[in-house]
Amino acid sequence: MPSYKAPVEEILFLLSDVFPIQRYNNLPGFAEATPDLIEAILSEAAKLCEETLLPLNQPGDRTGCIRNKDGSVATPRGFKEAYRAFVAGGWVGLSADPNLGGQGLPYTLAAIVNEFASSANMAFAMYPGLSQGALAALLTHGTDAQKKIFVPKLISGDWSGTMNLTESHCGTDLGLLKAKAVPNGDASYAVFGEKIFISAGEHDLAENIIHLVLARIEGAPAGVKGISLFVVPKILIEADGSLGAANKVTCGSLEHKMGIHANATCVMNYDGAKGWLVGEPNRGLNAMFVMMNEARLGVAIQGLAVSEVAYQNAAAYAKERLQGRSLAGPKYPEKPADPIIVHPDVRRNLMTIRAFNEAARALVIWTALKSDIAHRSADKSEVQAAADCLGLLTPVLKGVLTDIGFDNTVKAQQVLGGHGYIEEWGMEQFVRDARIAMIYEGANGIQALDLVGRKLAKDGGRAVIAFFGEVKSFIKDNEGDAALAPYLTGLKQGLAHLEQATLWFMQNAIAKPDNAGAGSYDYMHLFGLVALGFMWAQIAKAALAIKPAGNGDAAAMDAKLLLAKYFMERIMPESGAHLARISTGAATMMALEAEQF
Amino acid sequence: MPSYKAPVEEILFLLSDVFPIQRYNNLPGFAEATPDLIEAILSEAAKLCEETLLPLNQPGDRTGCIRNKDGSVATPRGFKEAYRAFVAGGWVGLSADPNLGGQGLPYTLAAIVNEFASSANMAFAMYPGLSQGALAALLTHGTDAQKKIFVPKLISGDWSGTMNLTESHCGTDLGLLKAKAVPNGDASYAVFGEKIFISAGEHDLAENIIHLVLARIEGAPAGVKGISLFVVPKILIEADGSLGAANKVTCGSLEHKMGIHANATCVMNYDGAKGWLVGEPNRGLNAMFVMMNEARLGVAIQGLAVSEVAYQNAAAYAKERLQGRSLAGPKYPEKPADPIIVHPDVRRNLMTIRAFNEAARALVIWTALKSDIAHRSADKSEVQAAADCLGLLTPVLKGVLTDIGFDNTVKAQQVLGGHGYIEEWGMEQFVRDARIAMIYEGANGIQALDLVGRKLAKDGGRAVIAFFGEVKSFIKDNEGDAALAPYLTGLKQGLAHLEQATLWFMQNAIAKPDNAGAGSYDYMHLFGLVALGFMWAQIAKAALAIKPAGNGDAAAMDAKLLLAKYFMERIMPESGAHLARISTGAATMMALEAEQF
Repeated sequence: MPSYKAPVEEILFLLSDVFPIQRYNNLPGFAEATPDLIEAILSEAAKLCEETLLPLNQPGDRTGCIRNKDGSVATPRGFKEAYRAFVAGGWVGLSADPNLGGQGLPYTLAAIVNEFASSANMAFAMYPGLSQGALAALLTHGTDAQKKIFVPKLISGDWSGTMNLTESHCGTDLGLLKAKAVPNGDASYAVFGEKIFISAGEHDLAENIIHLVLARIEGAPAGVKGISLFVVPKILIEADGSLGAANKVTCGSLEHKMGIHANATCVMNYDGAKGWLVGEPNRGLNAMFVMMNEARLGVAIQGLAVSEVAYQNAAAYAKERLQGRSLAGPKYPEKPADPIIVHPDVRRNLMTIRAFNEAARALVIWTALKSDIAHRSADKSEVQAAADCLGLLTPVLKGVLTDIGFDNTVKAQQVLGGHGYIEEWGMEQFVRDARIAMIYEGANGIQALDLVGRKLAKDGGRAVIAFFGEVKSFIKDNEGDAALAPYLTGLKQGLAHLEQATLWFMQNAIAKPDNAGAGSYDYMHLFGLVALGFMWAQIAKAALAIKPAGNGDAAAMDAKLLLAKYFMERIMPESGAHLARISTGAATMMALEAEQF
Repeated sequence: MPSYKAPVEEILFLLSDVFPIQRYNNLPGFAEATPDLIEAILSEAAKLCEETLLPLNQPGDRTGCIRNKDGSVATPRGFKEAYRAFVAGGWVGLSADPNLGGQGLPYTLAAIVNEFASSANMAFAMYPGLSQGALAALLTHGTDAQKKIFVPKLISGDWSGTMNLTESHCGTDLGLLKAKAVPNGDASYAVFGEKIFISAGEHDLAENIIHLVLARIEGAPAGVKGISLFVVPKILIEADGSLGAANKVTCGSLEHKMGIHANATCVMNYDGAKGWLVGEPNRGLNAMFVMMNEARLGVAIQGLAVSEVAYQNAAAYAKERLQGRSLAGPKYPEKPADPIIVHPDVRRNLMTIRAFNEAARALVIWTALKSDIAHRSADKSEVQAAADCLGLLTPVLKGVLTDIGFDNTVKAQQVLGGHGYIEEWGMEQFVRDARIAMIYEGANGIQALDLVGRKLAKDGGRAVIAFFGEVKSFIKDNEGDAALAPYLTGLKQGLAHLEQATLWFMQNAIAKPDNAGAGSYDYMHLFGLVALGFMWAQIAKAALAIKPAGNGDAAAMDAKLLLAKYFMERIMPESGAHLARISTGAATMMALEAEQF
């Protein structure tokens, strides 16, 4: 059975030394989050994830969810109790408005807890995770009455939420969707249609399930401009707030999937289910994007989370497994063989994963802080700058953290050799689970298009110009520091390639949008390299500051510096290959006729 | 259910125009392989794979193998009939000596048929595939009596073979193995021990199973120099050749694996099983390498094979799935949306796969031809040159074709979005099946070490010098051809990087072997890029020669030229990143203390 230890120490370092969270004490909820409280919260979350969620992960994968004949769905043994413990701890509403039952703490902390939970048990963490998307949509676009009915119950975890977008013939292209809503004459609608791939669509963890459903009001225009968002509870709610009759929405079947077996992926049938409009008619896509952006960051965190737990188990194996001798002569001559950690190629796998994980974690925190500013600051220009950055970085995090996170689970599995391929050790489950994160909430190719086609040009490139400016300022401010130089050189090179690629799009993709599409995926990854490199430069700076002060763990700081160096030496060089590919444009790939594929 | 069509046309092009097989008519078995016969053989193999093996692939994955209480193992429904059809077609002995019941045709053809079978049903193809390793060991190291008893039955497929190397505490480092052989006083030994991860170790397809087992003769030296190879039949053979009593070898359990569910991966218990020495005592590792080299090429082919079938299904989906509109304006305005093949990023995935598949197929054939020369030529210097090349390229093919083959199944899965993640479409099975090829027959990190630590320096670098020479001669001979220039530029650049990396090892790795280990994986992939690029340059040359002659399918040749260009534009640029990584050496990755991982 795999093990897991939440990286609490490392996060405390990030929150105190790299991105000092006290700087944000002017924001609501931040002053309350004192260092002591943060440590207590993280330790408590770590305990829950390590002791309660982790032991259910492998058994949950084996059992999966079971749909009963009456359409109800049973989650694996132990999930109900774990869910009760999770919601009792107040984790669903950690960063939610205290007036609605939340704890009002920074979203940044909720993002960190999400990492722990997803490392310990990704399939489990999705159940409360999906409530967040529903909450975001209702808080932003719901009526006061809707908020009053649904939000406190979602925050308490008594009820859970879902997002119902996909139909069998449309996922990315929601303009094609067919689900229909017919006015009932009162304020409600009768919703009809079949939705597929609905995560947590039906289960036995919560008393009620609140579906947020995209459908077309009868007579609405075709395409994306005729789509509305509805809230459709599984069980209808009486005027006094108590649960009433079952609504006409049922789980038709469960999908058999590659992974996340313990999360119920449902076909949902709406047979005239009662629903209420959320936001304006025909503006559902707009309301839905609120859910999606929230969800995309959550998925990015899953990529990191599974990479982290996979790393921990691969590293533990590499330190224990005795096999072969060091190329430089036996390191442990008293043992029958050296542990495989002596082999450079085993270290290459492990350091490649870790050089990503630590920077990705910093990037998640950095981005989450932007989200906190965007949602809580009273300063309009601060809000705009943070929202710009959040919008720009969201597709980068979703695409890059899930792609590399998955690659890393494969690398970690490889460290175990044949033992990585059999179920017993749990490594192959990480690969199967991590794989979905590259697909759902917008496949990564869509993230790349969102970045290049929408986010880059938005507001005259304001967001990307500001991001480049921030990285450059950091380089300029620190260039005089000789100790930091090895970490800045690679970052400068990567940034130069990213700027060249951006310029190339400006010159070549406006007249020929296929040139943007052809380079979008490489651009997203190039952007990710620079963002991760920027994190390493900042981590290195903090580590260098701590070392001579002697007020930290010097060996741990040395390890960070080595990982930063490794990133610049071994991972950043990919930037040149990305630029080369982007610069070749679309001509070759568009020349082949469709029938020749 | 996934579909599959064997690439017969493409292979005929490779065998007639790129590497004209008639050139080798001086070798035994080649003159018999007339163009007509080759086409007939490939068509027959294609039919068997498409119609018999493919339909069993997805059901076989779902059912898996079942171990009965008596230790016998049942393969999935239909496998017995398919195996009977396979062996009745003479496919096991396609390239084996006619004097022993084989057909004596080129090994190159057997390699091609192996690709078809592994595309259609990798788990099935492993059963007859494993007989090849056993055959190779017996033919090279067996006594005449052993050959007479075992070889014809293995070739006919009445019996199948296995390789028993791994024990729970040792895979890569066979020097640690504990299985024991005690002389029985006659010519036989009593073999004791537990072997794990034994593919096709027990099943119901053949009358008997011939295990080739590594064990230590009682009193033999410790380490690799005390290991011997034994042949241990599941059922003992009477003096008249008929089957006798059961031997004391049983399947203790089946592993639960990520994929290849339809192949029985067994824990094998040897409880004093009767075995006979193959080759000299304590020279078992030597004899075993004969099996391994054969098997490594077979595994490389699996990487290509699964990549191919994944490509075909992703391409078919991309041409049918309607979703969104071309960035350049609707391509099919009469349809509700364009097929997703209009999107550059979908094409990027597909062309990246195909630009690998076609070159990898050429590389398999090119290498298989070297194997044919090495085993069949009467010219000693020709044999040496071919054997050098085969030895050098075997780890490159095993490592690169399985790594990229796996990546490609992930890319192909991504084309289907959410549909790629559910079992129904079969794409996730390709990912799970392809994954093992990176691990077994020597994990890919071991291949990289074999290449850098053993093959490069062997005989004063004779093999690698000859390979570089062959590529350079091709470039030099064709540099005057302006039409070919676009395909040579990238190859030259890649070769220059590979030569620089080789030089770097010579200068930096002899005194510090960790520098070789640290760069070995990148070097293997850099070598693969050059080898694949060399194939594309040769394919481009053949395509350019065919076009004006008008004696081929001009559109198909144009497609090859576009794919060659795509490879040089989008895949070859990785060579610079590999060189950059190699040149950083081992210092950073070795500096971290083991306990800090």
